[in-house]
Amino acid sequence: MITLLTDFGNSDFYVGSMKGVLLSINPHIQIVDITHNVSSQNIEQGAFLLKQVYHYFPQGTIHVVVVDPGVGSNRNIIAVETEKYLFLAPDNGVLKYIYNDCSDYRVIAITARAYFLAEVSTTFHGRDIFAPIAGHLSLGVDIRDLGEECSDYLKPEIIKPVREKNKIMGEIIYIDSFGNCITNIEKEIIQEKEKLQITIKNKILPGIESTYSAVKRGESLALLGSSGMLEISINQGNAHKRLGIEVGDKIVIEGSDEDKDKKKKEKRKK
Amino acid sequence: MITLLTDFGNSDFYVGSMKGVLLSINPHIQIVDITHNVSSQNIEQGAFLLKQVYHYFPQGTIHVVVVDPGVGSNRNIIAVETEKYLFLAPDNGVLKYIYNDCSDYRVIAITARAYFLAEVSTTFHGRDIFAPIAGHLSLGVDIRDLGEECSDYLKPEIIKPVREKNKIMGEIIYIDSFGNCITNIEKEIIQEKEKLQITIKNKILPGIESTYSAVKRGESLALLGSSGMLEISINQGNAHKRLGIEVGDKIVIEGSDEDKDKKKKEKRKK
Amino acid sequence: MITLLTDFGNSDFYVGSMKGVLLSINPHIQIVDITHNVSSQNIEQGAFLLKQVYHYFPQGTIHVVVVDPGVGSNRNIIAVETEKYLFLAPDNGVLKYIYNDCSDYRVIAITARAYFLAEVSTTFHGRDIFAPIAGHLSLGVDIRDLGEECSDYLKPEIIKPVREKNKIMGEIIYIDSFGNCITNIEKEIIQEKEKLQITIKNKILPGIESTYSAVKRGESLALLGSSGMLEISINQGNAHKRLGIEVGDKIVIEGSDEDKDKKKKEKRKK
Repeated sequence: MITLLTDFGNSDFYVGSMKGVLLSINPHIQIVDITHNVSSQNIEQGAFLLKQVYHYFPQGTIHVVVVDPGVGSNRNIIAVETEKYLFLAPDNGVLKYIYNDCSDYRVIAITARAYFLAEVSTTFHGRDIFAPIAGHLSLGVDIRDLGEECSDYLKPEIIKPVREKNKIMGEIIYIDSFGNCITNIEKEIIQEKEKLQITIKNKILPGIESTYSAVKRGESLALLGSSGMLEISINQGNAHKRLGIEVGDKIVIEGSDEDKDKKKKEKRKK
Repeated sequence: MITLLTDFGNSDFYVGSMKGVLLSINPHIQIVDITHNVSSQNIEQGAFLLKQVYHYFPQGTIHVVVVDPGVGSNRNIIAVETEKYLFLAPDNGVLKYIYNDCSDYRVIAITARAYFLAEVSTTFHGRDIFAPIAGHLSLGVDIRDLGEECSDYLKPEIIKPVREKNKIMGEIIYIDSFGNCITNIEKEIIQEKEKLQITIKNKILPGIESTYSAVKRGESLALLGSSGMLEISINQGNAHKRLGIEVGDKIVIEGSDEDKDKKKKEKRKK
Repeated sequence: MITLLTDFGNSDFYVGSMKGVLLSINPHIQIVDITHNVSSQNIEQGAFLLKQVYHYFPQGTIHVVVVDPGVGSNRNIIAVETEKYLFLAPDNGVLKYIYNDCSDYRVIAITARAYFLAEVSTTFHGRDIFAPIAGHLSLGVDIRDLGEECSDYLKPEIIKPVREKNKIMGEIIYIDSFGNCITNIEKEIIQEKEKLQITIKNKILPGIESTYSAVKRGESLALLGSSGMLEISINQGNAHKRLGIEVGDKIVIEGSDEDKDKKKKEKRKK
């Protein structure tokens, strides 16, 4: 089984020719499109989408990720083998969450031209290198036959939320097509706190709801989304458009815990 | 075989993770995308699209419909078994045309958590409930093992055209991506009438054409479309944009039959 | 294996019902979507996309192309058999590059109603004729059983670049979703020349680059693209939008070859 995650769109010959190459090498392969609508050359977006889907697939799945602004430059193409999966991607950090999630993995810089198409263009390695390599991997070619193990691959830091005493400061890392704004704050961090107050874009939300319908239609809310992250949404609406939230916007969560409240009351008494 | 009809779009991780879950449970299943571009939470649109496609699929197909504004509320998820197919959907009326088309069917309210993903989010039951249930159904699980039969499911009325003596009054129920405007007036009703005059949005059309090319390029026409319904179109153009027609707009068909014509002639004679 | 290339979009019931018909006839067929986003009724675009993908598929693939402004008129539907593939399309020129690429082929005008759906609409032959014919072909039906061989099929001329002494004059024939502007000037023609100067839309480009990253981010360049054609692009940008280039725009390539240079130098000496 092979999945495809690219920024090639669904309107051109790019995806179709990749599939043609794959199926010419292995006509019995099952190809699953994750999406081809990653914003053009947006590595961060590709990385996030991959993180969200890869682990739902059966063991042995080959995940092919082609978000590749450096195509034709001297960036490497890498194959990464984890315990359960194979990944094929340009070495530009698009696999950063894989490195983070998997304790044990091996990175190979691909050089075995014998597995490329006979003619390799400078602008479309998806068809000329990624697809034929993935096809041959699906037939059982060993990744050690594709090139040398490589240790200087790009491994960008994952921006984690900053945690102070009663504060968590995070940011928006992804906006989905419903306009839900996904933060880098994981469910587990939130669940340690109580009596939360969430501030984003001068908007204050009074806590975490458990479903969209916990607020009225058109009202905004914070909830622990299906991504496993804190999300800012509007019930049956588009938080991105309505609240003007963009990727990179900061979000602050204050946990007004019991002790803090008591202190305040004592102060007032004085 | 499993079909997917959702409003998740093609740009996010939603559809990809549903497919991952399905294929992890049954790697041999064939998944067919109907569309993932139903307008966000538009139950009517989902219902119409399903009606148009489901009966073309082979017997035994499992149709999974996730247009689910009530996700996370206490709405049921239901499995509906008809003579030829299985349907999986939220209980919000999106299956209304199925109830209408099929004389004999059974509705089960799904409660068998053993078939859900271990962790169920409040916002993405497509991945956490629909996909694993569909996967298990495709492996032969009996729908009676999923929950109790249920009789109080939502069964919204289907708006039928109003028929008076020489008039049929209907409305636009769907606009396709070519801008063709599809009414709720079925072919069979029209075919009883003759010498038709069609009024929509102050535009009068002189009858039913049999093909787009029966009128000049850019001219509007009424025809019996591939949906089996009366449609308003423009030859090689977009009737929705050019004529400003929207879903819900009324359409009136007058059948000036023989008798009526005779009466008019007699009046003139006097 | 069957590929689908249409202008039906991904939001309607059109593609889903085609697949339902195909799979009802042959449940074991593998269907590959090339794209359904050809601009509405744009035969040229469909023809170009087909040219780019068909030859990457395994021998025996059935390529179904439905870009069909004449649906319901008396245009023929044709099956074309080449050495390696079968093509199914309306007879409107959308296969022109196939005729050009393949020395040996046979064209059949399809008339065998026994293989159509029982009810054939006037507006959606994709579902009612193309899909069932393709399904039956995939089961081994001989194309000679579908109709008579036909010699008066539409074979539009392919616009070739004009070549003068030191000039090549071509035009833009396709713009992809990245905004790359693809010309009708093939790689092989360019490679004969040297010291090139390219003029398009009053913009002068100093030669052919080998990769996008040969110029700075945001700068325009000419390169030999993955289509095998000369393309005008912007590194990490959209040449179509930024330079205002449209399909049909003229492009002039001047090859300032050695002799010409020598002459200039001599002139200066005088």
